[in-house]
Amino acid sequence: MNVHVDIREVSLRDGLQIETPIPLSAKLELLAAVAATGVREVEATAFVSPSKVPSMADAAELAAELHNYPDIEFSALVASPNGAKRAAAAGLRSIEYVIAADDTFSVANVGRTSKQATDQIGEIVAIAHDSGVTVEVVVATAWDSPFEGPTPPRRVLEIVTAAVERGTDRLSIADTIGTVTPVRVSSLIAQVLPVIGDIPLGGHFHNTRGAGLASAYAAVSSGVTRLDASVGGLGGCPFAPGATGNIATEDLVYLLRDSDIDVDVDLQAAITAAGVAKSLVGHDLPSALLRAGDRIRV
Amino acid sequence: MNVHVDIREVSLRDGLQIETPIPLSAKLELLAAVAATGVREVEATAFVSPSKVPSMADAAELAAELHNYPDIEFSALVASPNGAKRAAAAGLRSIEYVIAADDTFSVANVGRTSKQATDQIGEIVAIAHDSGVTVEVVVATAWDSPFEGPTPPRRVLEIVTAAVERGTDRLSIADTIGTVTPVRVSSLIAQVLPVIGDIPLGGHFHNTRGAGLASAYAAVSSGVTRLDASVGGLGGCPFAPGATGNIATEDLVYLLRDSDIDVDVDLQAAITAAGVAKSLVGHDLPSALLRAGDRIRV
Repeated sequence: MNVHVDIREVSLRDGLQIETPIPLSAKLELLAAVAATGVREVEATAFVSPSKVPSMADAAELAAELHNYPDIEFSALVASPNGAKRAAAAGLRSIEYVIAADDTFSVANVGRTSKQATDQIGEIVAIAHDSGVTVEVVVATAWDSPFEGPTPPRRVLEIVTAAVERGTDRLSIADTIGTVTPVRVSSLIAQVLPVIGDIPLGGHFHNTRGAGLASAYAAVSSGVTRLDASVGGLGGCPFAPGATGNIATEDLVYLLRDSDIDVDVDLQAAITAAGVAKSLVGHDLPSALLRAGDRIRV
Repeated sequence: MNVHVDIREVSLRDGLQIETPIPLSAKLELLAAVAATGVREVEATAFVSPSKVPSMADAAELAAELHNYPDIEFSALVASPNGAKRAAAAGLRSIEYVIAADDTFSVANVGRTSKQATDQIGEIVAIAHDSGVTVEVVVATAWDSPFEGPTPPRRVLEIVTAAVERGTDRLSIADTIGTVTPVRVSSLIAQVLPVIGDIPLGGHFHNTRGAGLASAYAAVSSGVTRLDASVGGLGGCPFAPGATGNIATEDLVYLLRDSDIDVDVDLQAAITAAGVAKSLVGHDLPSALLRAGDRIRV
């Protein structure tokens, strides 16, 4: 078991992505609350099509404010070489390039097949590295597609292998629609780890079917050293209306603390940030700790 | 890892316990939906003080209807020898005798210290066995008390040892307030199993802090062969307003199915029963599968 897990806070991107757009000032309020948790990595925004993802249309404006938090490593999601260029131009030092493992999802999201998206890794790495930007390749729908069902692990390994060959700095595998459970988590990670050398592997889980924390814990037990989470469990999936979103940062921190795994995120500050998120989006969030609070510890 | 886990459906007891009482006819509607899942064990009611737990005041009336489901083993919770007598007289063939591991909770709930409650095991087993009724001793607040914080494992082992010596047929350990996480689950189970011989051990988990399924999975991985669950995740804890309740049957079945663990409960029927539960209590329930449904399987 690892003794430390890096948590990346994704509420500002994945968390807000399908919400009704909130003003930049509100995002900065959420960012301040998130920064107060002590988290070292924040996925701040996405450089994608503003017409397809209106909630991320202010990506460059938000990026211009990030210098106020010099201790945090900010990243942005991109889906194309053009997005990588925009992120670098906006001053981001780290990007996530997302590739869906199944064609139906990939075409619906970015207009390219999974293989076409994979073929762009080299170009994106070159754009990023030319600007001193690090790249994480994220394999989306790594376990299940909302359209095609189970993703063949072979397809994930093809993307991962291509990413390694083309110089990605990090990798992660994402349960985009919140369907995976511990056994399948451990099985895929056991297949991925041998082909990535010493490149750090992260996991991204949604709690859509209740098993998000169980899956995250299985991932850490299997060798993942990085986890995405979102204060309040902000974030959802457009394919599962009403479903819960990303695993909640505070719920994850609670579980990892009991597991003697060190994280940079303060539990009470994360609960506070979850309350800020709830108030900014104006509806209940699925976080358990936001309702129940910490247990008594003596 | 076990190949089969016995699920006991507790929505009719733990699920409804803190709800505004619903009519007997509504309980029978929920029971019919629960029975349609194929579950083999149902905790139907509690023979406790009607003034303290008004939602269980119709225990005897409900018990009189259970003969309609001859394939289900019904049980009732009791908290005293008198409750055991009432349950046996009402025709129940199985009882759970609950003993809180901490004194503050025990005194608040049943007016007796944990040791006083433990001292009654022999009398309750005698009452039950004289009527051909089987006894499960349930250790409540086995990991944490809402008043005293962490429960010393020694205290749990004292209760378990007394229960074994005095002839209990089954044992279970309960995370009454939904605070436990996998490492502490596995640790306590590893201490309990050596002292109980071949007596079946069950686990009872709440999802109050988001880790209910992760804990249930850890319990099964550690040797527990029986789990309580509640359709819809019905049930809560009076000490954590707004907190989610028991782990949801359908969410548990989803996770166990992916783990190649056999259960008697049909997933779609459990989702249907969760919908019935939601409609009967008239408010949202925390079940994930009730919102998101099953994933695509091919």
